[in-house]
Order: sequence, then C-alpha cells, then structure tokens
Amino acid sequence: MEPSLKTVAALLREAQDILIISHMNPDGDTIGSGLALCYALRKLDKRARLVCSDPIPAKYDYIADTFHQPEFAPRFVVAVDLADTALLGENLTFYQDKIHLCIDHHIGNRVLADYTYVDEHAAATAEIIYLLLQEMQIPLDSRIASCIFTALTTDTGCFRYSNTTPRTHRMAAEMMEYGADAAGINRIMFETKSAAFIALQSLALQALEMHFEGLCALVPITQAMFRQSGTTENDVESLSSLPRQIEGVQVGVMMRERKNGNIKISVRTHAPVNASDLCRSMGGGGHRYAAGCEIKGTMEEAKAQVLHFVEKALARK
Amino acid sequence: MEPSLKTVAALLREAQDILIISHMNPDGDTIGSGLALCYALRKLDKRARLVCSDPIPAKYDYIADTFHQPEFAPRFVVAVDLADTALLGENLTFYQDKIHLCIDHHIGNRVLADYTYVDEHAAATAEIIYLLLQEMQIPLDSRIASCIFTALTTDTGCFRYSNTTPRTHRMAAEMMEYGADAAGINRIMFETKSAAFIALQSLALQALEMHFEGLCALVPITQAMFRQSGTTENDVESLSSLPRQIEGVQVGVMMRERKNGNIKISVRTHAPVNASDLCRSMGGGGHRYAAGCEIKGTMEEAKAQVLHFVEKALARK
Repeated sequence: MEPSLKTVAALLREAQDILIISHMNPDGDTIGSGLALCYALRKLDKRARLVCSDPIPAKYDYIADTFHQPEFAPRFVVAVDLADTALLGENLTFYQDKIHLCIDHHIGNRVLADYTYVDEHAAATAEIIYLLLQEMQIPLDSRIASCIFTALTTDTGCFRYSNTTPRTHRMAAEMMEYGADAAGINRIMFETKSAAFIALQSLALQALEMHFEGLCALVPITQAMFRQSGTTENDVESLSSLPRQIEGVQVGVMMRERKNGNIKISVRTHAPVNASDLCRSMGGGGHRYAAGCEIKGTMEEAKAQVLHFVEKALARK
Repeated sequence: MEPSLKTVAALLREAQDILIISHMNPDGDTIGSGLALCYALRKLDKRARLVCSDPIPAKYDYIADTFHQPEFAPRFVVAVDLADTALLGENLTFYQDKIHLCIDHHIGNRVLADYTYVDEHAAATAEIIYLLLQEMQIPLDSRIASCIFTALTTDTGCFRYSNTTPRTHRMAAEMMEYGADAAGINRIMFETKSAAFIALQSLALQALEMHFEGLCALVPITQAMFRQSGTTENDVESLSSLPRQIEGVQVGVMMRERKNGNIKISVRTHAPVNASDLCRSMGGGGHRYAAGCEIKGTMEEAKAQVLHFVEKALARK
C-alpha cells in the first residue's frame, strides 16, 4: 500500500517497540535516517532501536548511540533507505516478510512491506524523515539535526550531485541552525582517508590507461593491488568516478579483480554516451551515466571485451 | 570610509561607466561576484565591464560574457573580492589609487578605496553582492544566479568548509530556483581534472612520506615532477590539503621546488597543532591550521628543517 505522509505519521504515532532497519553496507543516509527516526521516536517515550546486518563504521560514532540500544521484541518494523529486500543483508533476512513500513527514495523500490512510502525526488531518505518529523510535530535537536545533515551531505556528495535540490540546501541550512556541525561532519565524511586507501589510490593512478585518443580512461585494479595497499574490493567504490573526471574523457571504466576471479566493471559516462546500454551489451545494466557488469575471465580478456564495446559506443554517438 | 550596504547601493545607483576589477589569479568568487554585479548594473542601463590582470580561465566560459565588453573611460571603479591592492596584478596597478568602492569578505582587507565594504561573515563576496542586488531591487535572472552560485560553491569547496553558513545554503537554493545549473557548475568546478594534473597527483602520491608514527605526512614535489607531468607550480594548490586528509595525520606538509631553486612549503594541521606558529619558526606565517613559508636550499635540506620543527610542534601539544 502506498500511504500518504500523514498516514505514515499516524502509523508511527500508534506504533510501539519499533525496530528500525538500515540496509547492508550502511551509508550515511541509511544510518542518518535510521538514527534520526530512532531518536525522534524515543522523544515520544517509545522504545526504538536501529539494526543493520553489518557493523556501523566507527566514523559515524558522533551520531551512533551505541551505549543505549534497548532490548525488546519488536512490534513494528520500519526499513529506511532500503531499495530491495535483498539488501537487508544476511543477518537480517529474517525480517524480509515482516516489514510493516518502508521509507525510501529509490526509484523502483522492491521491498515488500505493509506500507511503502517512496519519494523519488528526495535527494536522501533523510529528506523524507525530516518532513515526517514535521508532520508528527516532533521537535528537532542537535543530535537529530546531525543525523539528518549526515544523510543529506553523504547522499549528495556534499551537495555536489544532480539529486541536490533547493529543498536539500534549505534543510541543510536548518540542520546547521539546530546545531549540526556541518564543517566537522563534512571533514569526517569527505576529508578523511585511510593510509591504505591513499596507497590504493596511488596504485590506481599508476595503472590508469588512456584509450581512443583520450575519450576513454580505464583503471584495472588487481587482487595484488588490494594486497599491496591493505585494502579490499569495497574501497574501490569511492574511486569509481575517478577515470571520468579527466578532462575530455567520455567513458570512464574502473575494473576490479574479484576474489572469485571474475572482473567487476563500473562504467561512468558523459552525455551522449549511454553507460547502461554499454553495460547491457556485457550482461549488466544500471543508470544512463553510471552502470556496471561482471565478466568471467582474466583482466586482459575483460579489458579487451570492454574496450571493444567502448569503441562501438564512441562510434555510435 | 566604511559605508552601510544602503550607502553602497546608493553609490552604485548614481554611478555611470563602471569598471569592475577582479583580483589577479582569479577564482570563482572574484569572477562570479564581478560578473553578477556587471550584469546587474547593465540591467539599469549602465555601462559596466569586468577586468582582471590575468585571463579568465576558459572553464568560466558559461558565465563570462566575452563578446560584449563595452569600451568606455571608467568614471567609477569597483573592486570585488580584492583583499589587498597588491593583488590587483601587474596589468592593473594603474588603478591602485583610483578605486572608489571595494566590496570584499576578507578579514583585514587592505585596499585603499574611497569606500570599503567588508563583511567577514560572508562565505564569499558573492553573498554581499546578492544582498546588494536585493537592496538595489535589481531582479535576478538565471545568468546572474549562475554567477553567484559559482562564487558560493567555489569559495566554500562545494559547501564543505567551515565558512559555509545557513545563509550560504539558502542563497544556493534560491540561485538554483533562478536557474543556476548547480550540478553542471559543480561538475566543471570540482569533477574535471586535466590529464596532466592527474599525472602530477600520481607522482605526488608515490612521493608521499609518513613520519613520526603517522602523525606527519609529507609530499616533496620537484621540478622534475612538474616536467614529467606537464604541470606547473600552480597545479600544486589543489593538492595542498592531501597530506592532512590521511587518517591520524596531525601535520600535512606539501613541499614544492620552485624554479628559483627555493622550496615553498604549505603546512596544514589539525588542532591542537598550530600551523602558523610552525611556519613562523621558518620565517613564514598564515592561519592557525593553514600556513606556509619558503626555504632556501635543496629539497633534502628543507625537508630536514621542516621535520625538525614538526617534531618540536608535535612534542609541544
């Protein structure tokens, strides 16, 4: 059922012993939205707690209330920023058919819940949480504001990406007025990198290849590079947009060798090259300018295949 | 004289044939503020033109009106974002004692003008321009909004730095509503790097040294590295904060060999280490967490000297 925000507010007003679920590999939006909702519900003297299949990274300590998670048998289950039940993660699959309410901003949300509220125009799920707390007339405080600010800034790449709207900026302004330490949060989220990550970035830049007269930049990352730098496959995520950032590049390709031997490929393009079409040719898919696929074979074989399709895509435009 | 914003508005309402001056090595704020003011004054049927000692970089083409710069003998000269007359640049020193009005946001502005209006709480000079246009009741349009947005986002590192206030976010929201293509502007300003710069970044990361059990990160950049990558000393600016971004680092040092053989040193620290004190020991100075100095000698000699003072600074805290 697709409820109105008023209905969502009413559901939560009536609910007791509320379990809030974040998606696996948690990011700033699922954590910030979940915690903001959790802290807000506790203000109404309800028991509420946030769970996640994976540990919440230590960098969120400033908002993650680790010392005060009451134990109770959940009577109401809310998922936040969960686009698909598959993203609950292995420790929370138990809840896949027990979600009462899902609050999310992903297009094509695929969670089976009693009530699913999706606002695709929200830059972050936290924008919906903000509007919900207004609807529920729960006053904000600096901790809730810090949670919401964290979610807004992380899901928009610090207000950089095209999902940022005037509403996002105005909410950020208000969160600062409620006491969110914007500069401090941004420093933790965007200006702090592990030495291992820096080492991986260095290896990635050394491995960078330019093709087709500078129209394509490609970075192949091997298991040896993960070992040498002390990083894991997940650390590649924040490097995915690096090849496309180079002036003149229309297709940026990040390739990583997985432990299972497959090659995972992330493609980022600039208009008019369609990343989704390009990856679909290789059995993958995604968005127009950001897509991916996975190829069996060695790095060299995968590279040859990718470059073949990149060349065709460049010829087509 | 320190006028009110109302007085500044009155001065500009009366002025004719207005020359607007940006500072040398122009950045997004001086260009964006200058152009916003220029376009706004033209709406009042005044002749106005923007000049700068250095060429305006091509990346600002989307706001820089290159084809329509009327020639006239200036009767009123306005400097925007100019902190010191020395920053006029060699081609505009002629104007150093001919500035009628200076509009700026730098603490300790040292421009000698008939009227100097400084708001140190403005994240960018463009915030003052926005308020000024409101005071003058000049309606905004998408071009002026793009100029102001450019200035806001560049001077705040895309709303990341501590100079960003709720007012900055609210102005950004309004500029988007007037038609500024926020995501497009941010992509040009923050997501586009030359292949040469990427090559320099790669060399810089390879040269990265860690000292004092990870409390200090240091990057020495030589003339050979500039030659190899095809970059110049100026390209180091945007790498200055890189060493401090590494987790656990309290003192980040960027060293570059200058053409004259000296070593220019940029120091970035985290509290409680005082970068200004540290650089003052070496004949330089600056702000609490960002300072610099220049040392005669070889890279190795300079490095030894820097590390000596860094060790003392780390021991002091």
